[in-house]
Amino acid sequence: MANAWRNFEGNLWQEDIDVRDFIQNNYTPYDGDESFLEGPTDATTELWNQVQALQKEERAKGGVLDCETEVVSGLTAYGPGYIGADTKGLEKVVGLQTDKPLKRAFMPYGGYKMAKEAAETYGYQINPKYDQIFGEYHKTHNQAVFDAYTPEMRRARHAHIVTGLPDTYGRGRIVGDYRRVALYGVDYLIDKKEEDKLNCGDGTMTDDVVRLREEITDQINALKELKAMAEIYGYDISKPAVNAREAVQWLYFGYLGAVKTQNGAAMSVGRISTFLDIYIDRDLKEGTLTESEAQELIDHLVMKFRMVKFARIPSYNELFSGDPVWATLEMAGTGLDGRSMVTKNDYRFLHTLENMGPAPEPNLTVLYSPRLPEAFKRYAAKISITTSAIQYENDDVMKPFWGDDYSICCCVSATQTGKEMQFFGARANLAKALLYAINGGKDEKFKNKDGSPMQVGPEYAPITSDVLDYAEVAHKYDQMLDWLAGLYVNILNLIQYMHDKYYYEAEEMALIDTDVRRTFATGIAGFSHVVDSLSAIKYAKVTAIRDAYGVTTDFKVEGDFPRYGNDDPRADAIAVKLLHSFLDKIKKHHTYRNSEPTTSILTITSNVVYGKATGALPDGRAAFTPFSPGANPSYGAEQNGLLASLNSVAKVPYKYALDGISNTQTIHPDALGHDDAERKGKMVNVLDGYFSQGAHHLNVNVFGLDKLKDAMEHPEKPEYANFTIRVSGYAVKFIDLTREQQLDVIARNAHHAL
Amino acid sequence: MANAWRNFEGNLWQEDIDVRDFIQNNYTPYDGDESFLEGPTDATTELWNQVQALQKEERAKGGVLDCETEVVSGLTAYGPGYIGADTKGLEKVVGLQTDKPLKRAFMPYGGYKMAKEAAETYGYQINPKYDQIFGEYHKTHNQAVFDAYTPEMRRARHAHIVTGLPDTYGRGRIVGDYRRVALYGVDYLIDKKEEDKLNCGDGTMTDDVVRLREEITDQINALKELKAMAEIYGYDISKPAVNAREAVQWLYFGYLGAVKTQNGAAMSVGRISTFLDIYIDRDLKEGTLTESEAQELIDHLVMKFRMVKFARIPSYNELFSGDPVWATLEMAGTGLDGRSMVTKNDYRFLHTLENMGPAPEPNLTVLYSPRLPEAFKRYAAKISITTSAIQYENDDVMKPFWGDDYSICCCVSATQTGKEMQFFGARANLAKALLYAINGGKDEKFKNKDGSPMQVGPEYAPITSDVLDYAEVAHKYDQMLDWLAGLYVNILNLIQYMHDKYYYEAEEMALIDTDVRRTFATGIAGFSHVVDSLSAIKYAKVTAIRDAYGVTTDFKVEGDFPRYGNDDPRADAIAVKLLHSFLDKIKKHHTYRNSEPTTSILTITSNVVYGKATGALPDGRAAFTPFSPGANPSYGAEQNGLLASLNSVAKVPYKYALDGISNTQTIHPDALGHDDAERKGKMVNVLDGYFSQGAHHLNVNVFGLDKLKDAMEHPEKPEYANFTIRVSGYAVKFIDLTREQQLDVIARNAHHAL
Repeated sequence: MANAWRNFEGNLWQEDIDVRDFIQNNYTPYDGDESFLEGPTDATTELWNQVQALQKEERAKGGVLDCETEVVSGLTAYGPGYIGADTKGLEKVVGLQTDKPLKRAFMPYGGYKMAKEAAETYGYQINPKYDQIFGEYHKTHNQAVFDAYTPEMRRARHAHIVTGLPDTYGRGRIVGDYRRVALYGVDYLIDKKEEDKLNCGDGTMTDDVVRLREEITDQINALKELKAMAEIYGYDISKPAVNAREAVQWLYFGYLGAVKTQNGAAMSVGRISTFLDIYIDRDLKEGTLTESEAQELIDHLVMKFRMVKFARIPSYNELFSGDPVWATLEMAGTGLDGRSMVTKNDYRFLHTLENMGPAPEPNLTVLYSPRLPEAFKRYAAKISITTSAIQYENDDVMKPFWGDDYSICCCVSATQTGKEMQFFGARANLAKALLYAINGGKDEKFKNKDGSPMQVGPEYAPITSDVLDYAEVAHKYDQMLDWLAGLYVNILNLIQYMHDKYYYEAEEMALIDTDVRRTFATGIAGFSHVVDSLSAIKYAKVTAIRDAYGVTTDFKVEGDFPRYGNDDPRADAIAVKLLHSFLDKIKKHHTYRNSEPTTSILTITSNVVYGKATGALPDGRAAFTPFSPGANPSYGAEQNGLLASLNSVAKVPYKYALDGISNTQTIHPDALGHDDAERKGKMVNVLDGYFSQGAHHLNVNVFGLDKLKDAMEHPEKPEYANFTIRVSGYAVKFIDLTREQQLDVIARNAHHAL
Repeated sequence: MANAWRNFEGNLWQEDIDVRDFIQNNYTPYDGDESFLEGPTDATTELWNQVQALQKEERAKGGVLDCETEVVSGLTAYGPGYIGADTKGLEKVVGLQTDKPLKRAFMPYGGYKMAKEAAETYGYQINPKYDQIFGEYHKTHNQAVFDAYTPEMRRARHAHIVTGLPDTYGRGRIVGDYRRVALYGVDYLIDKKEEDKLNCGDGTMTDDVVRLREEITDQINALKELKAMAEIYGYDISKPAVNAREAVQWLYFGYLGAVKTQNGAAMSVGRISTFLDIYIDRDLKEGTLTESEAQELIDHLVMKFRMVKFARIPSYNELFSGDPVWATLEMAGTGLDGRSMVTKNDYRFLHTLENMGPAPEPNLTVLYSPRLPEAFKRYAAKISITTSAIQYENDDVMKPFWGDDYSICCCVSATQTGKEMQFFGARANLAKALLYAINGGKDEKFKNKDGSPMQVGPEYAPITSDVLDYAEVAHKYDQMLDWLAGLYVNILNLIQYMHDKYYYEAEEMALIDTDVRRTFATGIAGFSHVVDSLSAIKYAKVTAIRDAYGVTTDFKVEGDFPRYGNDDPRADAIAVKLLHSFLDKIKKHHTYRNSEPTTSILTITSNVVYGKATGALPDGRAAFTPFSPGANPSYGAEQNGLLASLNSVAKVPYKYALDGISNTQTIHPDALGHDDAERKGKMVNVLDGYFSQGAHHLNVNVFGLDKLKDAMEHPEKPEYANFTIRVSGYAVKFIDLTREQQLDVIARNAHHAL
């Protein structure tokens, strides 16, 4: 290791795997500005042009350029793949998911039917021999989950009171510590896992110990195969990386292994920026790398992340619109010792949005603190204003829970890098649950064959009065949430069990400590609508309008009531109580592998699908229309400007939603000022103010609605090819959204004033 | 069901699955003699001649006639198969494991490498495409077990201190209640399993509930496929059987489903004789069946059981010599109400050994009680004397534990039919453990690369004195057994977990109650040698002879000492204490799925392999020579005749070895008398006397050693083609044993006097 680790400081990380200790001992904080940055090299431009041409072709072909039909994806399923026929020499970072760029892999383990349907959707036919192989010989995750579901679970899923469940594809949200590949080399990682296996269990073979022992073996085998995968590209990653280029390449191979073996909804990259800066900095000092070459490395790495794609089915695309991968990648943050962790590399990553234009992936995330260097804050603000492609999360609220080496494993969910994994669990529809409370568990949309409403929730007595009484509604809602929380947790218990059994993430878990902390992520949809509905019932007069079956079809609201999103303590208190109460109910239940239950207020783009399945609500939201996304106030509710809205959201305590509280806001450029300097300054002020109140997350879009409307009508205009916006939890090319999703984005408030 | 159930009595069995209740309400005890029996029909003779010709061809080809290389075995993997090209019309019972008689199926799920090796052993090559399918896409049981083993477990397995483990093939020993197929039809069974699934768990999805819910689904799918399998042969088994021929056929299809999907060491048929008699009796009364036709049905059913075969690897054949299947099938026994359960059908099953000559399979087992009708006891004795093909188990000791509807799931192990399954666990070598106690955990046979003895057991202080002190040996042996019991149980925990995960017996479990009782079967090898060794140390002077490493190579015994097998209370007390103590140590430990730990004293033919791996013992047994089998006294130890030997074995309490205590004895015909009548009478006396003392099991061979020696030297003589003998736990064609096994059998005592 001596050569690879030359000039590196610190001891702990040399004695055992400890990437955080390596970083803290070796990184060089940077508080200067962006003036050192270099533009794209010729190679970068050439490669990116080729990728863009392929993307254009992909869009022209309906969203998928090519699709595997013969080969089951795996670490060594393919020979080497490059962007172009003669680009091998240009690519400073090599490796594709398949043998060709943008070709979608065949990944049957999460669900064979889905893998087949995904291919068929785009006109490809999986070799029918796999019907027998994955139908008879090997069961897949999806089949296993449905084998074990109860009728109640199937009904709840059908009625979308729980939905977006990872029961048809990989659960994702597991971030391998890909940095370990670079720092230690794979042989060392194998040795450590062999040690762990020797120490796994005291000899008493409980189910838990047997399962873990098998998992460690699967991890070791994955590491061995990862080495073989790198060899296909001509690299020996058994030993540590000796320079920046190798570090970038080794790390990318680690990530590539993950996306070759798993098609999780979120396949985050993790907190790699500061880590890689250490290697770049050493090479710069040793004179073996120029700044231009450093930028090129990062550009090429980012280009590879931009190319990650999975084959998805239409119902998945409806839920998570625009083909996202959540290759989330963090920058900045501060250390436990109080030092800024901003390095030049954080600039380089943001700068990729300039060198290669905006793009939704990787999902660039700034771990924000008002204490970050001013120059960096202003540069990030500038990138936000010009690209709308980055998101901010509050390092100051996350650090007490996750330390200073966490990664965001999806949109907003922190996990300690290399020490933790998450059982992703999508979300429960709390707005529909409110209607169930009022209607005695009967669904307002989904019917029996005879036209009567389907009984999805328990047959509790419905509310029969015309005018709704707050105390009665609150009481019945509490009961219904009890039911929903229990059902939801147990659906997830079942799903996570089967995922471990049939689609275990051996490659990613191989890059995480064996003694792993597991969180159990639940989530909430319809948050603002429940808050406003309860407020309406409490502070105004709400009359239920019912159909022949006694199920509500609409609500008449008389009088005014406080709404969430206006910094009104009456509504905001309801919000806090709702979240706290739901989390308590979740925590009551047994969770798979004794994982730690958390929750999130995060809908991604599923707010549209959820809303479509949910009837009219007492807050005035019309039946079957989109919810507001994440923890956002409802459309039209915000009457007091951006800051009042942010204040409301900031009151929702992060400690009750450790899986994240997503807030997406669009600011008209004019609201930020008249020139770039003023806009950057105001943006920094907004972020400082918002986050210093303890808020968790902000997606920032800076544009007017006119641009959105024009892009919707004229997607062919070249300036919209890479027009990227932030939606709940990720960034997306606007023209890749479904029209329904585009209309939803347009319907949201664009703040013209702070 | 009305027609199918015409003239049947009783209510409980009509309201829910309850075959026992059906039997108790409808069977007709028979206390007459064998004079009603009919000889073979022309069809039987023709078919059996063809099967014998095939068996001859099989032996000429080295033991395997044909082997599948393309098709993975499964319920519906093949079209219909018949004994001969034009025998379809002759076969009253149809159905083969594959498409051709005696062709071995390809069964990879227990272990792909083994399935491949088995085929290769006989010159067949499995299609290499399966390397990827069962290497990459689907892991098999064997691979999974080895993935999770600890180094200690691998060493213990290597050194044969635990061995015969079901880690390379199906665990077997699960007896589906195949009668249910006939009595209820498959649709009813599916309905009941659907009900069970609805009632499985209260909604809390613990791992146990999730696993069981998936298993029930797998069972339901297996039942659906079982119907499809029967349809291939032109039968609709969705509804109950309406007559005896259907009952026999439906039941056989149930069993055929088991042997198409599992290659367990023991694939017992179960307690079917009395059940089928009810159908035959009804048909006889209705005039739709003659006795000759009834016998033909049973002959053809038995013929099918005789044809069941699996592809095995050489090391398996060494352990379980002679290609046994343990298609164990019970007769007789008594009811909880005291009535004899002997029916005419029990005669018919025994009579197959006359109509078609002796055969090792099915493993015909008489559930013996002195209270059985005299005529039946005498007929069974006659069959024993003429064929040596049947075994006896004591119904009076088993009934209190298992009721009156248990089946023997292997050689000697009772399980409640349709209500229970067993986790088969092979056995621990207690004789080697005694040497470990003396030698501080060092193995006397298996060496390190440098020639030093391998440390397999814990590094406890060895005994260093030359003359062994009983108290010291007993103390150290107790410690070593503690270690061995813990290791052994945990090896089995691991194996059973993986078997459930990768090779679940869906078809068999579908014919067993969902709320199943599970036993955890351990076993003991080297029993008599440990007893005699401890006795020698206690009552004589035993001096250890050691090698340069201080490990014993032999023992010098001076003076006489009592030996197990002579009705000497001093030795027999050691035997009882040893068993009790081992069981207590087993019971200390967590067992998989909270199964009930049991043990057995049963080595099958593995006494030879175990003995080969075990050094010299203080009882005078030479190093690396066979153990005595099961609970048998050691070779040469029995000095006081058969009855004294039986008395010793009878003292071993069944309640400490609920998984069975196997005893195999060979009696010279002259010892039983001078004519058939006298021999039958004496045999019945021997059995009555032995079992009334509470003994559990007896394999009875009646022949002289001269016959064995002649058969070994002249296997080609026609009279030896079907010469069947009982070995520990099963019957075998003598000429199919390895020469080593033959020599071992010859070395055993043949009692010339009672």
